[in-house]
Amino acid sequence: MYRAQCMCPATQGPCNTSKPSMLDFVNKAKWDAWKSLGSVSQEEARQQYVDLISSLVGTEAPAVAAQPTGSTKGFQTLLVSTEDNITTIRLNRPEKKNAITVEMYNELIEALDLAGKDDSVITVITGSGDYYCSGNDLNNFTKIPEGGVEKLAKESGELLRRYVKVYIDFPKPLIGVINGPAVGVSVTLLGLFDVVYATEKATFHTPFSQLGQSPEGCSSYLFPKIMGAAKASEMLLFNKKLTAAQACEVGLVTEVFPESSFQSEVWTRLKAYAKLPRNSLALSKQLIRVVEKEKLHAVNDAEVERLVERWLSDECMQAIMSFFQAKSKL
Amino acid sequence: MYRAQCMCPATQGPCNTSKPSMLDFVNKAKWDAWKSLGSVSQEEARQQYVDLISSLVGTEAPAVAAQPTGSTKGFQTLLVSTEDNITTIRLNRPEKKNAITVEMYNELIEALDLAGKDDSVITVITGSGDYYCSGNDLNNFTKIPEGGVEKLAKESGELLRRYVKVYIDFPKPLIGVINGPAVGVSVTLLGLFDVVYATEKATFHTPFSQLGQSPEGCSSYLFPKIMGAAKASEMLLFNKKLTAAQACEVGLVTEVFPESSFQSEVWTRLKAYAKLPRNSLALSKQLIRVVEKEKLHAVNDAEVERLVERWLSDECMQAIMSFFQAKSKL
Amino acid sequence: MYRAQCMCPATQGPCNTSKPSMLDFVNKAKWDAWKSLGSVSQEEARQQYVDLISSLVGTEAPAVAAQPTGSTKGFQTLLVSTEDNITTIRLNRPEKKNAITVEMYNELIEALDLAGKDDSVITVITGSGDYYCSGNDLNNFTKIPEGGVEKLAKESGELLRRYVKVYIDFPKPLIGVINGPAVGVSVTLLGLFDVVYATEKATFHTPFSQLGQSPEGCSSYLFPKIMGAAKASEMLLFNKKLTAAQACEVGLVTEVFPESSFQSEVWTRLKAYAKLPRNSLALSKQLIRVVEKEKLHAVNDAEVERLVERWLSDECMQAIMSFFQAKSKL
Repeated sequence: MYRAQCMCPATQGPCNTSKPSMLDFVNKAKWDAWKSLGSVSQEEARQQYVDLISSLVGTEAPAVAAQPTGSTKGFQTLLVSTEDNITTIRLNRPEKKNAITVEMYNELIEALDLAGKDDSVITVITGSGDYYCSGNDLNNFTKIPEGGVEKLAKESGELLRRYVKVYIDFPKPLIGVINGPAVGVSVTLLGLFDVVYATEKATFHTPFSQLGQSPEGCSSYLFPKIMGAAKASEMLLFNKKLTAAQACEVGLVTEVFPESSFQSEVWTRLKAYAKLPRNSLALSKQLIRVVEKEKLHAVNDAEVERLVERWLSDECMQAIMSFFQAKSKL
Repeated sequence: MYRAQCMCPATQGPCNTSKPSMLDFVNKAKWDAWKSLGSVSQEEARQQYVDLISSLVGTEAPAVAAQPTGSTKGFQTLLVSTEDNITTIRLNRPEKKNAITVEMYNELIEALDLAGKDDSVITVITGSGDYYCSGNDLNNFTKIPEGGVEKLAKESGELLRRYVKVYIDFPKPLIGVINGPAVGVSVTLLGLFDVVYATEKATFHTPFSQLGQSPEGCSSYLFPKIMGAAKASEMLLFNKKLTAAQACEVGLVTEVFPESSFQSEVWTRLKAYAKLPRNSLALSKQLIRVVEKEKLHAVNDAEVERLVERWLSDECMQAIMSFFQAKSKL
Repeated sequence: MYRAQCMCPATQGPCNTSKPSMLDFVNKAKWDAWKSLGSVSQEEARQQYVDLISSLVGTEAPAVAAQPTGSTKGFQTLLVSTEDNITTIRLNRPEKKNAITVEMYNELIEALDLAGKDDSVITVITGSGDYYCSGNDLNNFTKIPEGGVEKLAKESGELLRRYVKVYIDFPKPLIGVINGPAVGVSVTLLGLFDVVYATEKATFHTPFSQLGQSPEGCSSYLFPKIMGAAKASEMLLFNKKLTAAQACEVGLVTEVFPESSFQSEVWTRLKAYAKLPRNSLALSKQLIRVVEKEKLHAVNDAEVERLVERWLSDECMQAIMSFFQAKSKL
């Protein structure tokens, strides 16, 4: 199943008018349009929309540190381990194609923060199962905060801003091991990785405009820098899905490996990298990053601001409705 | 016939001395050199030079709005139409390989200004006939303004500056459909397009130094950014002509299509793009552009200033003379 | 024989403590580790380390102008000539794979300064023999200045800073004719060339972290700009050696030629380039450079500062010791 990587609450008017509460909202004309969706039952449609809205919320997610259970280092959605000077952060919801819940966003921020400070030489992000990451998960949250959709959009924007910020500021080499398809924010963030190794089965898809949204993860700046505007815009504006080979050609991916030898070849390399002088690697990476850091933070802020506006726009809601309508007809 | 994409008036001395009038000019030594050109008759040579000089003039071109004739939306040199949410601007002087006259520069500025404000979702620029655009046309103007060549150069620079500015500020996705060879400013401006689709028959040529000139269209900044200095300088300094495949490899072109299916494949895509949410596309494109916009305007200004100096240099005149001399020997 | 491209003096403590003199140094624990290197004799090991330390020194190198002998234009380590409007600077220590001594650094600065001011249209850098350049030479110097290793590191940093600065400010087209393998600073500086032609036998290797060091030559900024971070970091952080074809694919090299026709094809082109209008080329190159110049100088300063810190770090010494230990076991 395809997963939208960002959500969009519906509103009545232009962004500068006061927004209706969720209860108001469902009583209004937009809702009528919504519930009339193709073959989706009204209850289903309502649930889908509530899911959409709710997936924006970030504050009432379970606190990361609160449940130091048996899962690695207390994370619920990640497997995090350190071995051979490598800290590996593994997205661990394979049954959901590693779709990112709010909990996972918070855990990723926490895990990256810890990895940046630990004794490891390099940090790796990868996924469990066949997918690397299918983008945002729409299904885990159903509560709208008291402040309504506007508050929801703001909080979601702030969560995204903090999430991307961790990547910009990450102080040591960060390596992506892309074990399968990547969607949305899991693609745009690759511009902030130092090295990206991908299996031939990986694909790279950023369907922003299809959902009425706009690019994030500093991709609006880094993708044109990496591949030129002519290739970047086809991805970021027109939803072009890249194969692993294409992503490598344009410079988003460092190297592509056959699926059969992917894990063994990549981890052999990574283990060799992790034996290199730690400070030399960290300081060299910081040297490369520092010249762009201020600009990247400004880009992140601008992208989030734009995205929050988008989430609160009619157009975005219409696009998401069309998306679900198309799905329901399959 | 090959067409020079920029013109160069001849002068006596270094740039900081006062320039001779056209009449003075033809009485002087430089003229003797000029008229002695190979097999070109004196009258021909004189006419060629007057054409060169005159092609710099921008002010006395026919006003765009003055002749709302039967041609599309009143344009003389363009076909402009809006259909399926796409505004298409077609360079329409196929018998002249779509060489850009001053009138066409002014019409393009006007047409792009209107396209940016209309209801279309995307804007397309393409050419009629076998050429996309052969660059500046040297043959349409014969009048030197009263202020002489210096005034001419300044006015031409200002026209170019305004023309490039429209591309920098263009507020929605701008797509190039490159139906054949592209020369000079029609190539350099591609760095400011969002997507560029080309037929396999297209070529990309920027013979600046051959004509004693310097790059424009923000290419001095964007080409190194897109393809690296090592590839950009071969084009911008050393006149390397790229095939469509090469232009795609370096990232100047998004994708190349077989000539036989070019139009059908491209327009199928464009029609699909034009159904995407309009604001999402426009705001995403602006997000990508805004981080570079101030720098692009500064680069445009610097390029035009340099080019006006070049036009008034002896070296530039000599280069153009050599160019015509070589042609006359063919 | 592989040559390290940068050197690293050993020190006792963190960078902000006062450094031991060379004599102090050899009496300390680090020295014990050093002299215990594999099969290297104590005398050999001591000599190697002294070489390492000494290779950092820049001030007491023979003055360039002092010995106007029979070698071209008075240079000892270079062949410099001007013909057909081309000034060619040829690294001329083929028996040492054109490893750069301090003398050669100073001569290159001088030769580039002269080439920038002479009447030639383009300037070419190439190497004698099978190598283009194997990086820094460790073997020519044995004197530690009175100020000890800290002074040594500072002087070496200043020499490097001045060397890179000449490339940033070079006022006309600079073309690399890469006749064989390139290592270290001879690779990183390629980002500051305008055009780079390579034989298929060339390779490109920047083993910084392997030696506990960090990138220079503005590569920390230009390599990500040219090829994207995903490819740049594999070279600059993880010591990936590129073939000529790979270097061309990522945009570091303009074009690769078969070894059999390399010289004839390249010099035919260069002679044609050198007939183009001189001012047009110089001013166009400056136009391309000026927009980045301030940033490039800042990057150069930051890279050198970081590298001087690295040279004075324990980690860097350990890395170089390991490097020699590995070599001694071959």
